[in-house]
Amino acid sequence: MDSTEKQQEQFIGYAALKPFDVAAGEISLVPYKFDPRPLDGDEVEISILACGICGSDVHQLTNGWKRAHFPLIPGHEFIGRITAIGTNVHHLKLNDRVGVSPVCRSCDSCEQCQDGFRQLCYKKVSTYGSLYKGYRTYGGYSNKARVQANWAIKIPDNISSEEGAPLLCAGITTYLPFIHQNIGENSVVGMVGIGGLGHLAIQWARAKKCKKVVAVSSTSAKAAEATELGATDFIALKKNGCNKSIPPEYLKSLDVLLVCGSGKSTNWDDLLSMIKTRGKLILLDLPDDPVPLTSTAFVLRHISIIGSFVGSSDDLYEMLAFASETGVRPWINKIGNTLDDVNQGIDRIMNGKAHYRLVICGEGRN
Amino acid sequence: MDSTEKQQEQFIGYAALKPFDVAAGEISLVPYKFDPRPLDGDEVEISILACGICGSDVHQLTNGWKRAHFPLIPGHEFIGRITAIGTNVHHLKLNDRVGVSPVCRSCDSCEQCQDGFRQLCYKKVSTYGSLYKGYRTYGGYSNKARVQANWAIKIPDNISSEEGAPLLCAGITTYLPFIHQNIGENSVVGMVGIGGLGHLAIQWARAKKCKKVVAVSSTSAKAAEATELGATDFIALKKNGCNKSIPPEYLKSLDVLLVCGSGKSTNWDDLLSMIKTRGKLILLDLPDDPVPLTSTAFVLRHISIIGSFVGSSDDLYEMLAFASETGVRPWINKIGNTLDDVNQGIDRIMNGKAHYRLVICGEGRN
Repeated sequence: MDSTEKQQEQFIGYAALKPFDVAAGEISLVPYKFDPRPLDGDEVEISILACGICGSDVHQLTNGWKRAHFPLIPGHEFIGRITAIGTNVHHLKLNDRVGVSPVCRSCDSCEQCQDGFRQLCYKKVSTYGSLYKGYRTYGGYSNKARVQANWAIKIPDNISSEEGAPLLCAGITTYLPFIHQNIGENSVVGMVGIGGLGHLAIQWARAKKCKKVVAVSSTSAKAAEATELGATDFIALKKNGCNKSIPPEYLKSLDVLLVCGSGKSTNWDDLLSMIKTRGKLILLDLPDDPVPLTSTAFVLRHISIIGSFVGSSDDLYEMLAFASETGVRPWINKIGNTLDDVNQGIDRIMNGKAHYRLVICGEGRN
Repeated sequence: MDSTEKQQEQFIGYAALKPFDVAAGEISLVPYKFDPRPLDGDEVEISILACGICGSDVHQLTNGWKRAHFPLIPGHEFIGRITAIGTNVHHLKLNDRVGVSPVCRSCDSCEQCQDGFRQLCYKKVSTYGSLYKGYRTYGGYSNKARVQANWAIKIPDNISSEEGAPLLCAGITTYLPFIHQNIGENSVVGMVGIGGLGHLAIQWARAKKCKKVVAVSSTSAKAAEATELGATDFIALKKNGCNKSIPPEYLKSLDVLLVCGSGKSTNWDDLLSMIKTRGKLILLDLPDDPVPLTSTAFVLRHISIIGSFVGSSDDLYEMLAFASETGVRPWINKIGNTLDDVNQGIDRIMNGKAHYRLVICGEGRN
């Protein structure tokens, strides 16, 4: 395989050329061909077999975080097979099945990399939306991608590409606090927002044998599924559209609350009231609007609000090994790989109809 | 000294009978006599020699936190001499000089007490505004107070009552992060809000030999004093009333930022932008309005927002010993102990004219 030859091939993906105008109903991707950057010596090229649609793709497509660049091809949780290998890569081979997470390059020499937080590398390249060597990075809604080989993570044989893809973002996002925040058998852990992230958080907590796994949702609609996923307790925050009081037995009861979903109607005081003194609220979700936190609700009880973002390549290997061993898998809806399939998929995500993760399945884009 | 005899004596303090109506200019305390609760076996009675006026007294008098009870006698950083001792107290004696912080009783058996966080005790009694055995607790704007002996902290001889009083709240509040957040010689530490709390935070950081001590203030008015207090660097956030950009060399530069003062005009995104990846923002201030935090500004860089509240009796002893040894002292303005003196003092605090801490000096109230 000659990487020079590969430079001539154009890749194709599904792109937004400008931010979606939701009010005007302009929420469709279009086909977009692009020249890939030359394959670096430390990179691999991947032909994508399965790519999850992440809630953050919508934040980027609508430019909700005001940090997106257009044209934009989303997709930062995907699995594919290696179709080309840089000259300096020796630990991977052609046709290896590898996965890619929201980060696709780190410098390995900065303070964050040296401390094992490569996903926070000062020179990190994001899987889509970054600039690297003058080329924009495009994500897994494309047919192919080129990434640093250290960020092409080998997938255990007993994890399918379709089920594995969402582990690369939703999976690692919800798993990382279990590594860094000392969550284990003695922990009472809660998760609010039972969706793409939350349904995995429940499973990790159960697989880690946490003392209690308290699923918190806006309504009781997901109670049975939360139990099936492994929750020991379930709290509905609303009844008939109105806020309910937190049941007294759950006040100050949680060592850790993982915020897996939030929105304009989230009552942050209620969430803080469920956390034990000296407990932690870990924010995994990235709401567009600022999170309003009442100081007396967390300062007087030494509560920490901790931001956590995906994981390093080492963390990804640990998470995949744990999933392989314990059977934790996302609940997915498979969709096809045509433009229409993907546009319909985005529409479902925007309307809260993913159950719980949508995955684009099939090689190639057209 | 017979404690039964003491029960007959009335105490007197300066009270707000209802929340201050700032708009109507009703911001005056009035004299208020009350029957003290009987002296418990584990308590001491203190005749107050010096009491600081804390910014939080104003939050309570205006009921800004919506948790105050009236009549309310403020004052939770005071020093006095012991005038009566409960039958079970053996480590203190009459006339000992002791200080009282915002907490005046803990149970010593709950999880927080057992873990060394007695100030977070599930049954803690606040120095003012709590109910204990059916009696409201009243603070150090009174002539006397009765507190659990474990919370009557002996004051080192080389710390005067006037300078020592603010250490019991402002001092411990700013010192606690140095105990629990691993702030030391390798730390680049910032403090925003150079007032009653901030001017002590600068001194602690200098005395702890922090690598850099970065004082952050709204204007450049306090630059010279910050340097005198021990700051190595100074940042003014505004110029001619307009927000300035954070100088590039201070972006992502702080291991820890201690928020010692904030308000409606605080730009929290600016503050977060100064913190290093995986750094900490420690909130010591308790603004009335919710703190709006942009999720992308802290989640994507694993920043923690940590609430911290005063300290345990052990922490108080450590802080006082460190102050005694290193010479850290609040900069105080002494005021008299008459009702007029105190009302004028409160007015100065409300108008930001304390420089940096006001202390009511003198025994007795009238």
